[in-house]
Amino acid sequence: MKTVKQLKITKGMPISKLLAEMREAGVMGSGRLGRASKILKEMVQDKDCTVFMGVAGALVPGGMRQILVDMLRNKYVDCLVTTGATLTHDLVEALGYHHYQGSAHVSDEELHKQGMDRMWDSYMPNNVYEKLEDFFEKNFAEFQKCATVKEFLWKIGSLITDKNSILRAAYEEKIPLFSPGIADSGIGLMVWGRIEKGKKLPIGIFDDISEIIKMSWDSKKSGIIYLGGGMPKNFIQQALQVAKPAVYGVQITTDMPQWGGSSGAELREGISWGKMEPKGNFIDVYCDATIALPLLFASLLEEA
Amino acid sequence: MKTVKQLKITKGMPISKLLAEMREAGVMGSGRLGRASKILKEMVQDKDCTVFMGVAGALVPGGMRQILVDMLRNKYVDCLVTTGATLTHDLVEALGYHHYQGSAHVSDEELHKQGMDRMWDSYMPNNVYEKLEDFFEKNFAEFQKCATVKEFLWKIGSLITDKNSILRAAYEEKIPLFSPGIADSGIGLMVWGRIEKGKKLPIGIFDDISEIIKMSWDSKKSGIIYLGGGMPKNFIQQALQVAKPAVYGVQITTDMPQWGGSSGAELREGISWGKMEPKGNFIDVYCDATIALPLLFASLLEEA
Amino acid sequence: MKTVKQLKITKGMPISKLLAEMREAGVMGSGRLGRASKILKEMVQDKDCTVFMGVAGALVPGGMRQILVDMLRNKYVDCLVTTGATLTHDLVEALGYHHYQGSAHVSDEELHKQGMDRMWDSYMPNNVYEKLEDFFEKNFAEFQKCATVKEFLWKIGSLITDKNSILRAAYEEKIPLFSPGIADSGIGLMVWGRIEKGKKLPIGIFDDISEIIKMSWDSKKSGIIYLGGGMPKNFIQQALQVAKPAVYGVQITTDMPQWGGSSGAELREGISWGKMEPKGNFIDVYCDATIALPLLFASLLEEA
Amino acid sequence: MKTVKQLKITKGMPISKLLAEMREAGVMGSGRLGRASKILKEMVQDKDCTVFMGVAGALVPGGMRQILVDMLRNKYVDCLVTTGATLTHDLVEALGYHHYQGSAHVSDEELHKQGMDRMWDSYMPNNVYEKLEDFFEKNFAEFQKCATVKEFLWKIGSLITDKNSILRAAYEEKIPLFSPGIADSGIGLMVWGRIEKGKKLPIGIFDDISEIIKMSWDSKKSGIIYLGGGMPKNFIQQALQVAKPAVYGVQITTDMPQWGGSSGAELREGISWGKMEPKGNFIDVYCDATIALPLLFASLLEEA
Repeated sequence: MKTVKQLKITKGMPISKLLAEMREAGVMGSGRLGRASKILKEMVQDKDCTVFMGVAGALVPGGMRQILVDMLRNKYVDCLVTTGATLTHDLVEALGYHHYQGSAHVSDEELHKQGMDRMWDSYMPNNVYEKLEDFFEKNFAEFQKCATVKEFLWKIGSLITDKNSILRAAYEEKIPLFSPGIADSGIGLMVWGRIEKGKKLPIGIFDDISEIIKMSWDSKKSGIIYLGGGMPKNFIQQALQVAKPAVYGVQITTDMPQWGGSSGAELREGISWGKMEPKGNFIDVYCDATIALPLLFASLLEEA
Repeated sequence: MKTVKQLKITKGMPISKLLAEMREAGVMGSGRLGRASKILKEMVQDKDCTVFMGVAGALVPGGMRQILVDMLRNKYVDCLVTTGATLTHDLVEALGYHHYQGSAHVSDEELHKQGMDRMWDSYMPNNVYEKLEDFFEKNFAEFQKCATVKEFLWKIGSLITDKNSILRAAYEEKIPLFSPGIADSGIGLMVWGRIEKGKKLPIGIFDDISEIIKMSWDSKKSGIIYLGGGMPKNFIQQALQVAKPAVYGVQITTDMPQWGGSSGAELREGISWGKMEPKGNFIDVYCDATIALPLLFASLLEEA
Repeated sequence: MKTVKQLKITKGMPISKLLAEMREAGVMGSGRLGRASKILKEMVQDKDCTVFMGVAGALVPGGMRQILVDMLRNKYVDCLVTTGATLTHDLVEALGYHHYQGSAHVSDEELHKQGMDRMWDSYMPNNVYEKLEDFFEKNFAEFQKCATVKEFLWKIGSLITDKNSILRAAYEEKIPLFSPGIADSGIGLMVWGRIEKGKKLPIGIFDDISEIIKMSWDSKKSGIIYLGGGMPKNFIQQALQVAKPAVYGVQITTDMPQWGGSSGAELREGISWGKMEPKGNFIDVYCDATIALPLLFASLLEEA
Repeated sequence: MKTVKQLKITKGMPISKLLAEMREAGVMGSGRLGRASKILKEMVQDKDCTVFMGVAGALVPGGMRQILVDMLRNKYVDCLVTTGATLTHDLVEALGYHHYQGSAHVSDEELHKQGMDRMWDSYMPNNVYEKLEDFFEKNFAEFQKCATVKEFLWKIGSLITDKNSILRAAYEEKIPLFSPGIADSGIGLMVWGRIEKGKKLPIGIFDDISEIIKMSWDSKKSGIIYLGGGMPKNFIQQALQVAKPAVYGVQITTDMPQWGGSSGAELREGISWGKMEPKGNFIDVYCDATIALPLLFASLLEEA
């Protein structure tokens, strides 16, 4: 058995060194984060590994948009699955709006009058829907050429100019981007607005499954990164189940396995389903992703 | 200000009385559950109120299937939104399989060999996919007649005989059932299996939004019940946002607002978005839904 | 393996029956609560079993005072360990004050001006310190006769008249009451006030350990009930460690084992320490105690 | 209102710079951690501020011992309050033992046979009690000279040679160290062992309150750092309540305010009690302390 080496911080210590020391130090939060850093490096550097990343939660209002973009630009990720909300937040920023630092200890009625939509302690101005409407109205004919959600999302990416956009980066880097619940988002509402006016956007709800499963089938190895749970995690997990169990895995979550849901399930649970390889290398980190992700990414940058 | 009345339990106290006492007692867990019971009763008894229920998490493996069915049968709910997983678990039981009481302290590798898929401390036998395959193979032509997810789910309901099925009950009671992330589930995989063989199921991913929004528009009042968060909650919330803010609301969750995501957001946050009515009557209960739901339902039954 | 029997609620179902059905239904929250109910009944009815109960958290402001008193009066518990805060809240009520139903969405500065001390969404009026001061000033000579915390707490109990007080009930029923962190509470502050004026209260900090360990040694069997964690749980656990591992155990907690602390540790962890019997019968329930406790107690009453 | 500046990570970015960027980025986890870093720096650099630190949870098994020692050595902290468990873990390491990296997915019965005491996924060998016994047996006469817990703990510190010990560092740096629940720990058990043999250690349970309150009274300003909650946090809070509200505050916790207990209470709640200054500068960070503390300390070192 390995002893817990008490963590020694030195002035100016690089982040990658800090995470390496955390790995030696313990097995609770810091030890798990340290292990995650090592697994992530191996996963990203393993040329035979196809990396699937699932992203849920308010990461763009939480300031993580640029890091997600840089991960795509650096080709750390081969496939991204995320929620409609994250893509809406990304598009909103691409159209020139911002999210704001706010507070949860406010009158929501007052905020409503001011046109501010609250997400815990960050705000999004409600007028974002104006440019969103314009964007969808103007480009709808382009969207109607798309057969799958992936094509639709790449199309959006192709139509925006902001280089620091997740949608744009996925499009430019040709990284498949899936969002099986895209209807459940501001983007979904924009499409609905056109449908209400008699237009059609007949993208099949089941038609992206084949592509993500094929990616897993065609890979030599699969690795997974989960920031939060929800549908992004589960959509990747089910592709692995029918294709190929993952050999690398890093999960960052604030949910807990004790509730029985997929979001909080430990990665090892996936072994029973054939989604994770019993001899694989994976770790669950119980931490706010807006804290863990910057550290893991900074460490990757130093060591890549 | 009201004093906290220390809760007095008497032998044989009915559940509705217990919840009424909890309401007087405090404002933490028990006080919130007590309030939820009252709001739920008012919501269900208000003939002008359209009740939207969002259900996420492993509620069928957790033993809540019959209660959900009874809520539909009793017309306590006018619209149900749930995950593909819940509908798959329901269908699996309708086809004659069961979930099992297990343990989380096991070897997942061993479980995998035994063909048991684990969800925290409950198991599903992996052979459920056999009858699922048969069911979808046999009925696929019927499914191809469906234009929306709602129609597809009602069609499934029409093809099964188990009266104690959520899918069946929604179909028979003509309660709209939505599942915007249906692709992300065992049901999604079954459709994929047919698509891989060259069949088509061109159900539009955006085509249910209109119907749920119309339900909210057409209602005199809206009320919401959330068991867990995820897409079911958010899909209802966005319908309210563009249609009519809810005046009644009960949320049962184990997630927390502090992470910033939609799942854990307090209902009052919805006021800022126009999803909840500032003068509405709503409460967040921080509790495992498999504990809170039986109590709330038992109380409703006694008082209805 | 046992199947998950889907929970069926019938109108007017007694609480004990509900818990029995929960036990059959699942293994997540409801199944665990159902098991807890059974273990609790066995523990309480086993005449050879000495029951140790640890209570932490804001249970009196949360309305649980009467239930705790009734558990003492019914001799369900043979030893109580709790925090100084709980005993202060109990004493405050015994002196005629109340806690109030409030809100967490307030200005704490405003509350401070109004003389209201907030505990999440309940309040305690700051003027409780007036009668507390009088009580300690008047009775201090009596307290100076006490050699241990247990004697001191029984003495307080003997000096108050409120039958519905935890302190009073423990005193009258001769149930040992320990509070190893009593200095950390309003009661501690009252003692400090006298010490500042030159009085002495030389109660030894280590002098109660012997008595609780002896209780475990002298018992034929030990059983434990934990409402929350903190010092009450750990003080009982360490007595078991040096005396006799518990054979029955029910833990109600909102903390999680993943953080590594004692409060959230699963009961089975105690097996490694010799605090819990490997063949013992115990369960962890992840639930707000103000929800779980009324149910468990109501069920006990029906079945006793 | 300030916009959320999307966090940009650059290769080799110092940790203090990362935290400064986090501060600009958001208000969820990373934004809060960023703010904590700034408040901590101001608190530590403010020569008029007396810094009280409360430490709970398994921080030594989690590898944080050296950081805590370095914080004492660097005089970042003027008063330390911690649990008996943390001091026992510290003493165990000072006597030459180690904690070990383990796993929670084990047989606790097997661990018990191997003499390993588990704390989630770290272990402590049960034979630590041998040298602990020797240490207390040998030095008990020295301990009997102590009148308060603080004196007792400094005495322990004076009798060990390990420079990297919390107890030793507090003693050498003359930093008051309080542990109001010291009886509830391995150290408590060692004292009990001597008391069982007829020796006395009449340290008064109420006798440290005066000293910590005096420290707050005598300070020009108070600042607080809480790693976890429990008694350490509360013991400091009650000193502030009767003396001087804190103007700086950083709380790192995995507990939540929604349960109503002191451990999870937001710092702003303290304003209602007069424990925190309404115009003070404080932040709650919801994060495992073994992740947040190394970052905050590393940043302090860079900026000091």
